[in-house]
Amino acid sequence: MSIVVVGSVAFDTVQTPAGRAEGVLGGSASYFSVAASFFAPVHLVAVVGEDFGEDHARIFHDRDIDTAGLSHVPGRTFRWSGVYGDDINQRTTLSTELNVFQEFKPVLPERLRKAEYLFLANIDPELQRSVLDQMRRPRLVACDTMNFWIEGKREAVRDMLKGVDILVINDEEARQLALEANTVRAAKKILGFGPSSLIVKRGEYGAALYTSGSHFAVPAYPLLDPVDPTGAGDSFAGGFMGHLARKGSLDDVSIRQALVVGSVMASFCVEDFSLRRFATLRPEQIRTRLKEFGRMTQFADPAQ
Amino acid sequence: MSIVVVGSVAFDTVQTPAGRAEGVLGGSASYFSVAASFFAPVHLVAVVGEDFGEDHARIFHDRDIDTAGLSHVPGRTFRWSGVYGDDINQRTTLSTELNVFQEFKPVLPERLRKAEYLFLANIDPELQRSVLDQMRRPRLVACDTMNFWIEGKREAVRDMLKGVDILVINDEEARQLALEANTVRAAKKILGFGPSSLIVKRGEYGAALYTSGSHFAVPAYPLLDPVDPTGAGDSFAGGFMGHLARKGSLDDVSIRQALVVGSVMASFCVEDFSLRRFATLRPEQIRTRLKEFGRMTQFADPAQ
Repeated sequence: MSIVVVGSVAFDTVQTPAGRAEGVLGGSASYFSVAASFFAPVHLVAVVGEDFGEDHARIFHDRDIDTAGLSHVPGRTFRWSGVYGDDINQRTTLSTELNVFQEFKPVLPERLRKAEYLFLANIDPELQRSVLDQMRRPRLVACDTMNFWIEGKREAVRDMLKGVDILVINDEEARQLALEANTVRAAKKILGFGPSSLIVKRGEYGAALYTSGSHFAVPAYPLLDPVDPTGAGDSFAGGFMGHLARKGSLDDVSIRQALVVGSVMASFCVEDFSLRRFATLRPEQIRTRLKEFGRMTQFADPAQ
Repeated sequence: MSIVVVGSVAFDTVQTPAGRAEGVLGGSASYFSVAASFFAPVHLVAVVGEDFGEDHARIFHDRDIDTAGLSHVPGRTFRWSGVYGDDINQRTTLSTELNVFQEFKPVLPERLRKAEYLFLANIDPELQRSVLDQMRRPRLVACDTMNFWIEGKREAVRDMLKGVDILVINDEEARQLALEANTVRAAKKILGFGPSSLIVKRGEYGAALYTSGSHFAVPAYPLLDPVDPTGAGDSFAGGFMGHLARKGSLDDVSIRQALVVGSVMASFCVEDFSLRRFATLRPEQIRTRLKEFGRMTQFADPAQ
């Protein structure tokens, strides 16, 4: 079953303790679609400018991602620049040029409106809502958002969430969205806003799943030499949705597995700048790391 | 097999979003020994002043903790006061009065020198070293330390670590001790300092185990209403050592289980001020929460 992702395609300039990459392919929809493509067919919906050439799109083609929904319009592609501290979890944005993204009004091609899986990457909640309205009863809708929208368009975020099954955000965003200082309490409140599952991304600490009846947590893969965390959250979401679409099941077992797959894809993302690690990633490397996650979290009942 | 713990007994004044507790029993050795007492016999070595009465020691007696090594000396007991923010993970120390703790020179009674399990709670590394020197070949030595000692007495910490099997610290301390910005890299370096296992406490994110051959991580129990995190780390260490002493085994299976037991004891600690939660805690409540940890972390291999 195939996945539609709506989000950004960008050129990033990134400085980390491991080095620097200039004007490289980035954006939430890019990371999501490449990570998800290892598990299911992906349709990318985004916008780029005249500076986006065939070469930039090569990884999408190599990964068999459908780019019919990638609009090419006059102007420059979205650009983002940031620097990470010695503690690679600390990020400072140096500049954001929205460029063609500023006028982005996603219109889904007819054949995509019937897709069963939809991921709304982090864009204006009103645009997320408009995409939702174009879809015909998708089986699963997941979305991301950020502080900027939660603070600036709280009502629009709340409205959009009514149509969302799984919200994927970080703990600070969860607390801000729920106006609660405690993440567990925030999670409980957010489950009343619409989504039946909340996934809280915790960066180097992994991710946690909250549903009304179950709690699950998975650690992050311990990387000795992280290179660039940009896109890790979107790669997580890509692996997560990819697994669900591949399995075609939405039960608790599958959602837990999907969190592990997401964590694995996020860990690969961080191993190189931009989407480079995915260009050479092989399915058996994914399987090996999935097994390592099993070993990392297994324990025998201490009460026995 | 029994455990000797050397550390502090204190009177704490604590303010958290859930309320306030004034002059209540605290201190690293208090939390450790009460948590560990659910699993193995514990001998407490610490110092208190004239203001420490029979009433204060009641929980130690109720939990059958041996207090023969608790010195009563002229002066006032160690006092600490702190406040937690709306985000209960943010702590500010308001005052520290070392009082009788300033002159604490732990001398182990003869019969304790043969104990098989030793926990050196967070005190001056030179005192930790002197306790180590008094012991006769203990089977397992674990210890805690903090930024204050790592910065101020780095050489003494490094020297003490040569005699330690398991170091239990938080991630910031691990990075500071190893002078590495990446926790995974820091862990690898610390395993070259002496300890064969490093346990990194991550507060609300749980704990991780690093050894030369294995990595394991356990999440924290998701508490809807945390009351007071004071002593959670020492309660973790108490549950951890208690389980190992009860099992009498130090293999990877037992150490992983011990991390889970530690996490369970830390989660109970946070449910009330001071040691209050432990006063009413029943073994079947521990077993129930251990089972919940199993459910919180279980997943089926996504590659199948």
